[in-house]
Amino acid sequence: MNNTVTKPANIAAIAIHGGAGTILRSAMNTAQEQAYHDALNEILGAGQKILADGGSALDAVACAVSMLEDCPLFNAGKGAVYTHAGTHELDAAIMDGATLDAGAVAMVEHVRNPILAARAVMENSEHIMLVGAGAEAFVAQHGVELVEPEYFHTEARHAQWLRARDKEGMLLLDHDATSQAAEIAPIDPDDKFGTVGAVAIDMHGNLAAATSTGGITNKRVGRVGDSPLIGAGCYANNRTVAVSATGTGEAFMRTVAAYDISARMEYAGQSLKEAAEQVVMDLLPRYKGRGGLIAIDAQGNVVLPFNTEGMYRGFAKVGETAVTAIYK
Amino acid sequence: MNNTVTKPANIAAIAIHGGAGTILRSAMNTAQEQAYHDALNEILGAGQKILADGGSALDAVACAVSMLEDCPLFNAGKGAVYTHAGTHELDAAIMDGATLDAGAVAMVEHVRNPILAARAVMENSEHIMLVGAGAEAFVAQHGVELVEPEYFHTEARHAQWLRARDKEGMLLLDHDATSQAAEIAPIDPDDKFGTVGAVAIDMHGNLAAATSTGGITNKRVGRVGDSPLIGAGCYANNRTVAVSATGTGEAFMRTVAAYDISARMEYAGQSLKEAAEQVVMDLLPRYKGRGGLIAIDAQGNVVLPFNTEGMYRGFAKVGETAVTAIYK
Repeated sequence: MNNTVTKPANIAAIAIHGGAGTILRSAMNTAQEQAYHDALNEILGAGQKILADGGSALDAVACAVSMLEDCPLFNAGKGAVYTHAGTHELDAAIMDGATLDAGAVAMVEHVRNPILAARAVMENSEHIMLVGAGAEAFVAQHGVELVEPEYFHTEARHAQWLRARDKEGMLLLDHDATSQAAEIAPIDPDDKFGTVGAVAIDMHGNLAAATSTGGITNKRVGRVGDSPLIGAGCYANNRTVAVSATGTGEAFMRTVAAYDISARMEYAGQSLKEAAEQVVMDLLPRYKGRGGLIAIDAQGNVVLPFNTEGMYRGFAKVGETAVTAIYK
Repeated sequence: MNNTVTKPANIAAIAIHGGAGTILRSAMNTAQEQAYHDALNEILGAGQKILADGGSALDAVACAVSMLEDCPLFNAGKGAVYTHAGTHELDAAIMDGATLDAGAVAMVEHVRNPILAARAVMENSEHIMLVGAGAEAFVAQHGVELVEPEYFHTEARHAQWLRARDKEGMLLLDHDATSQAAEIAPIDPDDKFGTVGAVAIDMHGNLAAATSTGGITNKRVGRVGDSPLIGAGCYANNRTVAVSATGTGEAFMRTVAAYDISARMEYAGQSLKEAAEQVVMDLLPRYKGRGGLIAIDAQGNVVLPFNTEGMYRGFAKVGETAVTAIYK
């Protein structure tokens, strides 16, 4: 690298998350930890390569989230949690910060990569959000791969669902071990928030965000959380910030959390760090909001705050080594 | 009235809308206009009475929107438009500005009053948004009335749907007569945005908002617009404002329009009037956003801006005569 490298090339970066919650060191062994670090590094590397080759932030986040969906370690796509009815209902959203174009799907049951379905809605329809069978019929016409529900099955999630059903009347948020679950077992690896997401800025200065989830283990059929909602769990705007959130979705919906970070930056003049800290550490907890988010601003600054024990996360600037982490 | 009347009693007020779009005087006759004014006045009167009796803003907006849903003149509940498949898919949201509690349903097909279903979700579940059959099953358990799809049928909407299907490849936004439709018929009473909504402040200073819709005539099955999305088509916060929107839903979603008004007031120090004008007259048109909104701030100020030819609308302060209007 020399001083002819332009500023835009330096700011290109991607950040990803694989869910936040009570991820206790004592409940993980070294091999498990390494599997998460390896997956995060591989996915960051793929996103980094797209950005280094001059690709768009939109392509980078779509690629990263589709890889997170394909990885059974995370609660999205393959490895998604089970609903109360023993089914999978998947939600995703994507947003292009250059145009404010956005696409989302919710309650899809046969889409291998919900994030690619969200992108198909964004690029091929006049709508932003399509839900259920109507969404599946539309995206199939636009080349998005459909699969049988069995594709999403993993033994670990199925066992988690069976245990959740045994704990009458409670939901398990993928990776969370507080509340009722904590009373039962202080270290409960089942009790988790599960969402995956990516945010990126490309060398042209364009921002993008993408979020995808299987929701909450044993969730009520038909429940839609923050992940597919523009402004709640996903938001991107070139003038301010790209955000992808994970956690107790309802708190992010009530506080319009992702867009609130943008609004604090645009209207109150807060820095990315100030805005993200205030939302994650102050605002969300007032509404029982537990979780975190990843965000990249228009200057390429990256933050990954969370108010839980851990969040699977990482970021990579173009030309630099990727950084991954799980715990505080 | 004398000077012992307390300030809180003076600020209690309700505003309602029945959709915005190209509502041309030349396409309406006096009897039609009178029917709309009468309906708006009756509904404002009911809301006003709740507020005058010390009732909550939440009760006032739920009552007003359920009456708008029951009235076949408006595109929500009875009188909702038809989807491409000849069905009805109804969406609604409600938000309590005192607590930021919120509830929403989308794609319900058998709920007589979707706004009451949204309220049941808010009050009886840990979730904010329930969709489709899962939503219907839940709200039925909580006393919300289900009806057969035939209940929503009206001859006028059915004829509108048949005409829409004849105009290949286009959607009709309930009350809009621009774009393609305008080329076919400059004055087209079918081409409309249809949403209903209410915002209120009660004598205790609490704000609430509610929005309900049948969506877009001939819409793709599964399309969800801004109406049931907290922050897009519905938002309430005691510290700032209560907002209910109507128009091209996707523009309101991309701009997170309802919450953006709150954010401009909270973070940029804008007045309600400034914030609402900037969103409706400047921000939304940049994203092809046509429509309007109603809003009441924490001081009881009321605005009803729209960027279309007309919006069915009205407001009533407690102790004052209601005001209703259709055109600019």
